[in-house]
Amino acid sequence: MELLSLCYIFKGLSASQFQRLSEITKEKPIQKGEFLMHEGQKAEALFIIKEGEVELLTSVNDSFELPIAILRNPGDCTGISSLVVPYKYSLSARCVKAAQILTIKQTALEKLMKEDHELGCIIMKNLAQYLLGRLKETRQELKIHFKTIFQSIHP
Amino acid sequence: MELLSLCYIFKGLSASQFQRLSEITKEKPIQKGEFLMHEGQKAEALFIIKEGEVELLTSVNDSFELPIAILRNPGDCTGISSLVVPYKYSLSARCVKAAQILTIKQTALEKLMKEDHELGCIIMKNLAQYLLGRLKETRQELKIHFKTIFQSIHP
Repeated sequence: MELLSLCYIFKGLSASQFQRLSEITKEKPIQKGEFLMHEGQKAEALFIIKEGEVELLTSVNDSFELPIAILRNPGDCTGISSLVVPYKYSLSARCVKAAQILTIKQTALEKLMKEDHELGCIIMKNLAQYLLGRLKETRQELKIHFKTIFQSIHP
Repeated sequence: MELLSLCYIFKGLSASQFQRLSEITKEKPIQKGEFLMHEGQKAEALFIIKEGEVELLTSVNDSFELPIAILRNPGDCTGISSLVVPYKYSLSARCVKAAQILTIKQTALEKLMKEDHELGCIIMKNLAQYLLGRLKETRQELKIHFKTIFQSIHP
């Protein structure tokens, strides 16, 4: 499946590695309003967008949902908590435009990575690179808040 | 070196993998006030605390340094940007109490991971797990800010 090669997680895999990956990948339609995953629940699968739109969100309190991002490009993915202990989703994902989604089960991918350490190393390297980037961005947002507070104290 | 096994990055390596790792590890003394790394600079090494204390910090603007953490437990490490493209430190680290530091060069570790994909996979998995945890924590801090703002608008 060519779509898998668009996903940053799988950047750098060989043709035969993509072949094995596609064998554990399933495609399914998702209706508008349906959830792919819920914050706090067990992370059992990784999801890759083929068509449609999926919104990522987190609940700030029971009455307020904070939107984090919208995934709409083929190859965009979510559910990376399924790649990392303790396998627990940290965000919710809701379909906002009818979608086709590729699904890779955590157990199947874990098995593939154990059988092929090179594949595992590439995937984990890509994931770490992504997470470090996101961490830097989130820290940057926090810094802006601190800056605002600092300037209000020392105008 | 037993100390390496205390570092979360190397959790799960075999005795022979630790042996190879120790062969590329160097130890050096660091004086109080000395910097191990500077935010924004090329990440050329990973640092592991043996003794002493190291403060991690980020500059919010030219005149204000925001402390992030203090490393003082044997096995605490910093400089993980040396494990991930684009190899650029995202924090500064200053010694606040005379220290003994283990140093592992990025190029040497990269070579070791290429020679032993299993070792690479374990290290990258540990790193991804750590980064996802830190990302969740940092998002949580941001949420608290949003909550405060939300409550000030809707008291």
